[in-house]
Amino acid sequence: MAVEERFNKVIHKVLERVVPRLDERVRVLKKVEEARSIVERKFRTFDPNIRVSVEGSVAKDTWLSGDVDADIFVSYPNTYDKSEIGKITISFVKKTFGKNRCIERYAEHPYVTVRLDGTISADVVPCFRVMDNRWMSATDRTPYHTAFIKERFNEELCNEARLLKRYMKGVGVYGAEIKVGGFSGYLAELLVYHFGGFREVLNAFSSFKPPFLIDFSASYTREEALTIFNGPLVVVDPTDRARNVASAVRDDTLWQFVMSSRDFLRAPSLRFFYPREISPPSKRELLKLLRSFQMCPLVVFMKTWERKPDILWGQMYKLERRLISRLEFDGFEVVTSKSWSDEDKYVAIAIILTSCAIPPGELKRGPEIFRSSSNNFLDKYQHSTRRIYGPFTRDGRLYVLRKRKHSDVVHFLRAIKSDEEFLRGLPVSARRCIRDANFLIGFECASLAGISGCAVFLKKLLLGKPPWKV
Amino acid sequence: MAVEERFNKVIHKVLERVVPRLDERVRVLKKVEEARSIVERKFRTFDPNIRVSVEGSVAKDTWLSGDVDADIFVSYPNTYDKSEIGKITISFVKKTFGKNRCIERYAEHPYVTVRLDGTISADVVPCFRVMDNRWMSATDRTPYHTAFIKERFNEELCNEARLLKRYMKGVGVYGAEIKVGGFSGYLAELLVYHFGGFREVLNAFSSFKPPFLIDFSASYTREEALTIFNGPLVVVDPTDRARNVASAVRDDTLWQFVMSSRDFLRAPSLRFFYPREISPPSKRELLKLLRSFQMCPLVVFMKTWERKPDILWGQMYKLERRLISRLEFDGFEVVTSKSWSDEDKYVAIAIILTSCAIPPGELKRGPEIFRSSSNNFLDKYQHSTRRIYGPFTRDGRLYVLRKRKHSDVVHFLRAIKSDEEFLRGLPVSARRCIRDANFLIGFECASLAGISGCAVFLKKLLLGKPPWKV
Repeated sequence: MAVEERFNKVIHKVLERVVPRLDERVRVLKKVEEARSIVERKFRTFDPNIRVSVEGSVAKDTWLSGDVDADIFVSYPNTYDKSEIGKITISFVKKTFGKNRCIERYAEHPYVTVRLDGTISADVVPCFRVMDNRWMSATDRTPYHTAFIKERFNEELCNEARLLKRYMKGVGVYGAEIKVGGFSGYLAELLVYHFGGFREVLNAFSSFKPPFLIDFSASYTREEALTIFNGPLVVVDPTDRARNVASAVRDDTLWQFVMSSRDFLRAPSLRFFYPREISPPSKRELLKLLRSFQMCPLVVFMKTWERKPDILWGQMYKLERRLISRLEFDGFEVVTSKSWSDEDKYVAIAIILTSCAIPPGELKRGPEIFRSSSNNFLDKYQHSTRRIYGPFTRDGRLYVLRKRKHSDVVHFLRAIKSDEEFLRGLPVSARRCIRDANFLIGFECASLAGISGCAVFLKKLLLGKPPWKV
Repeated sequence: MAVEERFNKVIHKVLERVVPRLDERVRVLKKVEEARSIVERKFRTFDPNIRVSVEGSVAKDTWLSGDVDADIFVSYPNTYDKSEIGKITISFVKKTFGKNRCIERYAEHPYVTVRLDGTISADVVPCFRVMDNRWMSATDRTPYHTAFIKERFNEELCNEARLLKRYMKGVGVYGAEIKVGGFSGYLAELLVYHFGGFREVLNAFSSFKPPFLIDFSASYTREEALTIFNGPLVVVDPTDRARNVASAVRDDTLWQFVMSSRDFLRAPSLRFFYPREISPPSKRELLKLLRSFQMCPLVVFMKTWERKPDILWGQMYKLERRLISRLEFDGFEVVTSKSWSDEDKYVAIAIILTSCAIPPGELKRGPEIFRSSSNNFLDKYQHSTRRIYGPFTRDGRLYVLRKRKHSDVVHFLRAIKSDEEFLRGLPVSARRCIRDANFLIGFECASLAGISGCAVFLKKLLLGKPPWKV
């Protein structure tokens, strides 16, 4: 089959799945509007200046069939205090729907998720009703975003946006939260609007060259925009010229999207939208994987210390980066690493090393022999307790072989647990969790089979393939 | 004791040992002159235009007591062919003194060593009698060198030269032959002449800064001289302005001399002139040394393939460099290396690695992810049989973990034996010796205890100290 034909066939199949049919549409809209009016009624008695509106993908008609994330925004006048609108919203929503149906959440702002029925939930989010870009909180822009898209999208563009969102979810780049560092729904919609459709977006990104600028505000020259905004991808928000809608997109997520686009356009397949699910591996299966694995995997498995996902992920990534730079500083060779959490009970940082043990001696390169600094080098190492061999000369330079701090990762991890410098800046609760962490090395990682989410995460990492190639 | 006092005491003791007493002087001069006149008489009947003269340290009175290396030069008119003067000299000398007392030698030119009595030997060396710097062979300059020093040296300077030569022998930097890559006797004398004495030479070299220029010819500006001659140390020959007397001095030998000077001036000791002898270690002693050695020593032990020392050492060093660059190319970490030969039966190349085994996978860094070359990298490694893991992204770059050719030095050495590319350019005889070589790794090196010279060499390398610190 020609690529063109396959592409159309795949798109057709995906559209069949993601575009909601009339019955689902009616059911969802009815349910969400019902919830909105309940919330509104509740607030009217409290303060008639508070507005309650449906925003996001449901309002824009860009939500995916079977995958509704409704947004109900509670807009406060700017006379309220920033610290109170979250509390007021959460407390009122809990009273309205009952505690059992609500989950408090914190991303960059507090909000509450309400279960409306078996399949539909809605996030009730507080914001300020502001004018003229006088933003007071991170969510104040959302109503403007909704309005911008609603005005410009017809049914066809809505479905193109659905395709792109489903695709981005499939290849693992959807979501602006810290955990993913990817594309928000709004950004996906803006891209569809700018390029004209799903295929055109993929075309553009398959030959992506940074810096890549889209300025919806049309208020800068290219040079100005690129001076103000950093990063490989800059999309200036049409409703706020001071904001790069793509600022949350991390380099590696962007690259993942670019790579997937190239692969998809060469060989379109449903796999990109709906990747194969990875079943939780048994201990036996993990052991088999680890046996054939020609490197040294290591997992720091901890209890979670933080309920706000964005804060938790931020600290996990910080810890991951610290572990890596410390391992490399101490001479270990890090291949790659990844963090995981169920955002409830557990946290895991997995690191792959080329080897669990390194030679006890480290070859330290000194200055060229005829430089005056060569004397300092000799003085420093000639009588050092860390000296194993040398100093000696080679190819016109001084060298010394000095003892490493740790030549085995077990020893390294034992030391890190109580290293004040390493733990500095982390909250006390996190330090405690690190101190009580389970350090699993090599075959020991198979014990994660008991925690199915973490076992899937580990299996994915060991396989080392992007979602569409699993 | 103050440094000054110790210095004088040491110098005094060395002078007592190196300045020949009258009886030795008479005996040596008589014996050498006797040999010279015998040779001269023999040649007179063959060609009266051939001159025979005593040159070198005996002629200059800079030889060391108990350590005579007499030079008898046979000067041919320039009508002779370059290829025949060696053969004629050797054949005549053999006939004169008898085959049993002669050893044929080849450094940069052929010559013959004659045993005159139990303690005195003389090298009989052919050269051309040339005028006006029209050099025809490497040894033609020697008579001019002898004349230059004889004219300028008094008894005091002769003894200063003796001190410096003994010192250079002690710290292991004496000898311009390829094996040592150090200072010739003539160069030592020129340095004493230029700086005024032994101590002044050490003073100068203890604060050595390249490029260091002494132009006895006084015929260049500094810029001219440094453009014509390369290297950190340039000493323009007073008898030949086209020649750097120090051209044979290798960087590491020069540095060894510089380092020793600093150490000696800080704490003068007889050890620098007469280093502690290293006794051949027993197998047991070697094993003990190897057990506490925190690295991986490896020795390529071979039969010798070449009788001319300069050629042999040249090829050994070449082989040593090749082994090192090949090991490093394949991912092994080389600490240092050294070659040895008894210049008779055996040759050994010893290399110290931080570890005998390295991880099977090598982390290969690719281009930055947004460069267009990233596509080539993906195409190259995605389906490569050497791919172990990846390609994946990290810190904005592509990486892949690929299988190494060899992850164990045993495997490496097995492959090298029959690797045509590795052996290219080496003579057939050398290739044969390499193919039959004994590769000793780690504890296996203890088997060298049987070859006492090589065992001493290995012990020195494992101790890793300069001669004056052993």
